[in-house]
Amino acid sequence: MSSKVSPLAPTDVPAMPMIAGVRLATAAAGIRYKGRTDVLLVEMEKGTTVAGVFTTSKCASAPVEWCRDKLKGGSARALVVNSGNANAFTGKSGKQAATLTAQLAAKAIGCKPAEVFLASTGVIGEPLDATKFDGVLDALALDAGPDGWMDAAKAIMTTDTFPKVATATVKLGKAKVTINGMAKGAGMIAPDMATMLSFIFTDAPLSASCLQALLKAGVTDTFNAVTIDGDTSTSDTLLAFATGAAAENGAPKISRASDPRLKAFVKAFNAVLADLAEQVARDGEGARKLVEIIVEGAKTKVSARKIALSIANSPLVKTAIAGEDANWGRVVMAVGKAGEPADRDKLSISFNGIRVAKAGARDPSYNEKEVSAEMKKPVIQIKVALGLGKGRDRVLTCDLTKEYVAINGDYRS
Amino acid sequence: MSSKVSPLAPTDVPAMPMIAGVRLATAAAGIRYKGRTDVLLVEMEKGTTVAGVFTTSKCASAPVEWCRDKLKGGSARALVVNSGNANAFTGKSGKQAATLTAQLAAKAIGCKPAEVFLASTGVIGEPLDATKFDGVLDALALDAGPDGWMDAAKAIMTTDTFPKVATATVKLGKAKVTINGMAKGAGMIAPDMATMLSFIFTDAPLSASCLQALLKAGVTDTFNAVTIDGDTSTSDTLLAFATGAAAENGAPKISRASDPRLKAFVKAFNAVLADLAEQVARDGEGARKLVEIIVEGAKTKVSARKIALSIANSPLVKTAIAGEDANWGRVVMAVGKAGEPADRDKLSISFNGIRVAKAGARDPSYNEKEVSAEMKKPVIQIKVALGLGKGRDRVLTCDLTKEYVAINGDYRS
Repeated sequence: MSSKVSPLAPTDVPAMPMIAGVRLATAAAGIRYKGRTDVLLVEMEKGTTVAGVFTTSKCASAPVEWCRDKLKGGSARALVVNSGNANAFTGKSGKQAATLTAQLAAKAIGCKPAEVFLASTGVIGEPLDATKFDGVLDALALDAGPDGWMDAAKAIMTTDTFPKVATATVKLGKAKVTINGMAKGAGMIAPDMATMLSFIFTDAPLSASCLQALLKAGVTDTFNAVTIDGDTSTSDTLLAFATGAAAENGAPKISRASDPRLKAFVKAFNAVLADLAEQVARDGEGARKLVEIIVEGAKTKVSARKIALSIANSPLVKTAIAGEDANWGRVVMAVGKAGEPADRDKLSISFNGIRVAKAGARDPSYNEKEVSAEMKKPVIQIKVALGLGKGRDRVLTCDLTKEYVAINGDYRS
Repeated sequence: MSSKVSPLAPTDVPAMPMIAGVRLATAAAGIRYKGRTDVLLVEMEKGTTVAGVFTTSKCASAPVEWCRDKLKGGSARALVVNSGNANAFTGKSGKQAATLTAQLAAKAIGCKPAEVFLASTGVIGEPLDATKFDGVLDALALDAGPDGWMDAAKAIMTTDTFPKVATATVKLGKAKVTINGMAKGAGMIAPDMATMLSFIFTDAPLSASCLQALLKAGVTDTFNAVTIDGDTSTSDTLLAFATGAAAENGAPKISRASDPRLKAFVKAFNAVLADLAEQVARDGEGARKLVEIIVEGAKTKVSARKIALSIANSPLVKTAIAGEDANWGRVVMAVGKAGEPADRDKLSISFNGIRVAKAGARDPSYNEKEVSAEMKKPVIQIKVALGLGKGRDRVLTCDLTKEYVAINGDYRS
């Protein structure tokens, strides 16, 4: 964990409301870090539904495998998250550690192990000693309360420089429902998924299949549109939990994502995902600039996404941004290497609204000084117009700095 | 151009022999750099055949488009290379500059413009003032001589820290033939192609189609198996020229790449390509370590290549190597994100011959101190055994250092 907070950290941190049916507690189990919390227990009421999306890695971690399997049941009573050790690439002992953790949590709160969801983040390849959770989880179950969302977000951090939370309140039927979320980054971040860990909670009464459909649709333009370094964790996990407690206040029970009564909820739900995803980009390892890449005029949205990611993941583009250099030649390079339809002589490129290139060449009207002043700002927008069709997409990333290299060249030692 | 030579530069620089039918000269045309040469003219005898492979970029530079078109003729009399300006993304003026350069060279040596091949490297998006070559090319044509290979390799450098040449001599029939090559790197390097510019010359009498077939086959495990940063230049160009002058010494004229008399020649030709490709990896921008990645036990060679490139292009793996950290967890991550068949629990990973992980977990016999000592060496071999099939492949890359960020964050200014 870096001691210096990212200059891109949000200045407005929301006060996190309670969510009926959700109680949280954190502790220092001494997994790896000294002098900080590293384990989070979230307890949820009976009847809580669960949905999840996970890393596409072919070498997924033991907790990811556990969650994928338990998701079939559709119901959740607890979430246990630890930082410091990812329990990934730990062979048979990884599965044993996951199972033991779930058993200990189930005993502590009185549910089935299959209703316990798990996530681990930190070093890969070191065995996780789950016996360290023995006793700790019992104490957490006793401690758990409806507040402490910020403490929870802090306990799951690794190289993050600030805790990431977001909240929204919205009407479902005539009842007020709440959506709370937390996330942690900050490297090894690329679609799909774009964050290692994120957890969303709501008191809305949604069926598991409805929640799953909302989550799957919601990540496309949020978490899956963020990339830090193009690397994909073995542990990426996004879980959503719906306690259904708002039904007591008259919120209707919803079983299909297409239900028209969900319209405002979906908007708020996606806004929470987008907020957290942007915070992940703002806390990219060593990041000094938030970079928004918009590609328009592509043949399709999928094509626009591929081109945007090619730009976002290009080390040469990212180092140019770090150097406050409007090096649109490198943007051209990244468009070209994406392998998607593009016509060099129709391309135009803007930085923060100033067009620097058009029709396949430098824009003669472009003023280097004006652009240089823009490049010193903390948020940089690169817009590429391909002039081929109506495909448009947007991704978020950050710059590539010497600090990224320092953080990642000196992580284990 | 960096003033400090890479610590990975080869210590043995070959004396470059003459090649009958090839004459070279360099000059300082003042394209961009001060106080150094930036233009190379290579003149070749009548009857010289030519072959080429180029960037896969959808936004290829004007010189690449010129060469692709002129390759159809199969014959070459001149090569003009300039550094400092890539003549890429320069719209209509780019094509005009390429045409004018070819016309000036054709006039200087007395050939058709279509027999002049071009390559430009340097800044993208700035118009190239080809009128600067007027007079310069005439002088070069007068100056050109059979020596000066090292001067030629120096004139085409941009951020390279050392000139890259290689040579081989081999029997074709009963005659001795020579193969000389030069290359420049050093960033924006990824398959396909893996170098921005490389030029190979031989006096062997090979038809253009034979030479093209040899070149295409030869790059697969050489230039296309090198990646520095995963970025692909708009200007990548590898051209091969065969003057045929060795026919005077009795070398047989060869028209098909499958001709059995070519066996030794092909081996030598590929060795020159491999030598130059390795030098490109050794001179990756900011590189302090040469990294060889071997993937074996994959389903197929293609699958092994994809996994090897995923490892080679992972910023987290590359920064770990820079930090002299045998972080095999990140290697697992990179295997997982490649999307190719892999079974976590069959994976084993070695660094410089020391197995650190097997059967999906840490190798219990692995000695951290022993591995740490290996990681301090300038050449690091990462071997991944998948245990699935017989697919094997090898790629070369380098580490990702703060110097890479510094070089690329401060290139235009």
